[in-house]
Amino acid sequence: MDDSHPLRRGPAAGAPIPASGAWRHGDPVGWRKFATVCSERCFALEGGGTLDEITLAYETWGTLDASGSNAVLVCHALTGDAHAAGPSGAGQPTEGWWEPIIGPGKPLDTDRYFVVCVNSLGGCQGSTGPWSPHPADGKPYGARFPVISTRDIVRTQALLADRLGIARWLSVVGGSMGGMQSLEWAVMYPDRVGSMVSIASTAAASPMQIGWSETGRLAIVNDHKWNDGDYYDAPDGEGPHEGLMLARRIAQIHYRSDDSLEARFGRAEADRLDKFNLWDRFQVESYLDYHGSKLARRFDANSYLILNKTMDLHDVGRGRGGLEAALGRITCPTLVVSIDSDILYTPRQQFELRDLISAGGAPLEFDTIHSIHGHDGFLIEFDQLGPMLDEFVSGIDKGA
Amino acid sequence: MDDSHPLRRGPAAGAPIPASGAWRHGDPVGWRKFATVCSERCFALEGGGTLDEITLAYETWGTLDASGSNAVLVCHALTGDAHAAGPSGAGQPTEGWWEPIIGPGKPLDTDRYFVVCVNSLGGCQGSTGPWSPHPADGKPYGARFPVISTRDIVRTQALLADRLGIARWLSVVGGSMGGMQSLEWAVMYPDRVGSMVSIASTAAASPMQIGWSETGRLAIVNDHKWNDGDYYDAPDGEGPHEGLMLARRIAQIHYRSDDSLEARFGRAEADRLDKFNLWDRFQVESYLDYHGSKLARRFDANSYLILNKTMDLHDVGRGRGGLEAALGRITCPTLVVSIDSDILYTPRQQFELRDLISAGGAPLEFDTIHSIHGHDGFLIEFDQLGPMLDEFVSGIDKGA
Repeated sequence: MDDSHPLRRGPAAGAPIPASGAWRHGDPVGWRKFATVCSERCFALEGGGTLDEITLAYETWGTLDASGSNAVLVCHALTGDAHAAGPSGAGQPTEGWWEPIIGPGKPLDTDRYFVVCVNSLGGCQGSTGPWSPHPADGKPYGARFPVISTRDIVRTQALLADRLGIARWLSVVGGSMGGMQSLEWAVMYPDRVGSMVSIASTAAASPMQIGWSETGRLAIVNDHKWNDGDYYDAPDGEGPHEGLMLARRIAQIHYRSDDSLEARFGRAEADRLDKFNLWDRFQVESYLDYHGSKLARRFDANSYLILNKTMDLHDVGRGRGGLEAALGRITCPTLVVSIDSDILYTPRQQFELRDLISAGGAPLEFDTIHSIHGHDGFLIEFDQLGPMLDEFVSGIDKGA
Repeated sequence: MDDSHPLRRGPAAGAPIPASGAWRHGDPVGWRKFATVCSERCFALEGGGTLDEITLAYETWGTLDASGSNAVLVCHALTGDAHAAGPSGAGQPTEGWWEPIIGPGKPLDTDRYFVVCVNSLGGCQGSTGPWSPHPADGKPYGARFPVISTRDIVRTQALLADRLGIARWLSVVGGSMGGMQSLEWAVMYPDRVGSMVSIASTAAASPMQIGWSETGRLAIVNDHKWNDGDYYDAPDGEGPHEGLMLARRIAQIHYRSDDSLEARFGRAEADRLDKFNLWDRFQVESYLDYHGSKLARRFDANSYLILNKTMDLHDVGRGRGGLEAALGRITCPTLVVSIDSDILYTPRQQFELRDLISAGGAPLEFDTIHSIHGHDGFLIEFDQLGPMLDEFVSGIDKGA
């Protein structure tokens, strides 16, 4: 094999990749705050089993008003974290993932609203997850971390809301995995949700989403450095980075669209070469390498396994008599946003949400982001998404 | 980890998977015939390098007429082989992949036409490929097998046509990778192609196709049992089967569609279980397991690498002044078939073929298969595809 083999060209050749992107005690924490939301008694999980103690990492922007009525919860997507807005800095290598949406004078105007974003339970940016010490032996949970559900995540967010003095959110807003949480909030806590926004999300994971999700999980566990989930103490930060990179590559393709990749890359070549070498790359391959490597430097493979499974298990109808009955429970004003080129969270799923929620009688608005960028549109098309959020949340605020 | 971990539940738990699905001397050969098309002098490859000797495995149906004017070449897709029609039997575990299309009285009527299908160069069902002995040491080429192009494959088919006494095909027909070959035939050998059919194929691989293709290749080489391509002599048929299964899983999803998987599986569960185990499967996961395992039992991972790269390199415009100039060379009557739900070989690519070929003046017909089954539609929707092929090829035959 020649030296351009990707296994010899990947991030392993550069700076070492940490075994986990998780915050650890003593690391700089960026703008995060931490709350232990469950310590007096254990937290019972929907799927059985318990967690003894749960820490949540979160960020806030703006000021909670005296009546506690101006709080907006923003729920992040799979590989997001609590840093929805703000600059990069020590302990926070990237700027906020919704920087153009959240801030003074922005669509979620922090001069008016108190915005909260919580790193998900099961995540790796400060909240309890597979990287956390298992109470039995103090070693990381690894593969011992239990499978959690969207409902478990939402229940931990509700405990944090109690701590912050927020009895009722003005709005709960999320895209993709975050939208799953918005939906569960509206179904589980109708008295605590003043309005809800679901962007490019779904009432229940589709078989195509499950299939893609499974391939990502298998890419990780097929990497022998995954080592049954036990890699946190591996020398030199060794871990299933190749597997996680591959999982990310798979995802990065269906996060975009044919038109998006065609417009950006076409058949441009990344490597100067004769084109007839198995490992010479087109630009699109270099792009996927980049995104794979970038994720492997900041995200924990075990969190990727857990949160992907959480999304596959997402089904607001489970134990509630099906989707129609569950979505019929929603009473708050709701905004459902579709992206026309999304092949992962398809317009079909958005129409289903629209139809089933409005059938239950909740005031429903539906809007479509027109984009070539597919699912990633909710992280790109701020010129369209911003006014939608501004108008919807402002309308709720004035009506409240 | 529990015992239901997929790595402990995959095909390794059943019958051993052969290191290669390739035919080897002494194995039953089914209905295949073999021809050595290049032995007197070596075969120079488009990308540089040579092959000393090339054997092609092929099948034929019907009888070549005295003038040699009734021959139809059918080109198979990525994991297909020469057995396009006919039953299963020793050396041929499955019935023909286009069984409803080829045969007496069928759309490609073998009472009228002499139909030929050739296992691709680089393949693993009897034609020279990575499993073949390297002339230097008699051991399998493995990763030493050169990268080949669609044009190389077509040139070997032309050498076989010479051997069979076919100066000019009545029609060259192919879907997906096979359609790439149809297109190259029409561009490279205008005097030898009476008509051409391209089904769900493309003038050049798109960045989305390349991206998905790359993830499949990385899934294979990330499997440490790939062993730099040298696994043919591994004990107990060990090889990169997990990697190949993962590559197939990735592909099997984009071969279908959201609607297709939703209609067939929804959120049905495969494993009786509490649903909160990382490795408990939905039906769609079981389906992907099945297809991955099935391919790993019959296909060689190194062939998968080579032929995927061939498809990524496919660009009829390369070295010919671009797509418009190259497709403008086509003079024969052409049928382009699109599948409306195909997210891999998108309708955009079919419209491009239609527009650029007809702009060059070739008689062009365009038809669309209406299907929920995505790219796999050309292997499923025989009720629609059959009449299209029948009408088109009959028209050419009568006009000839």
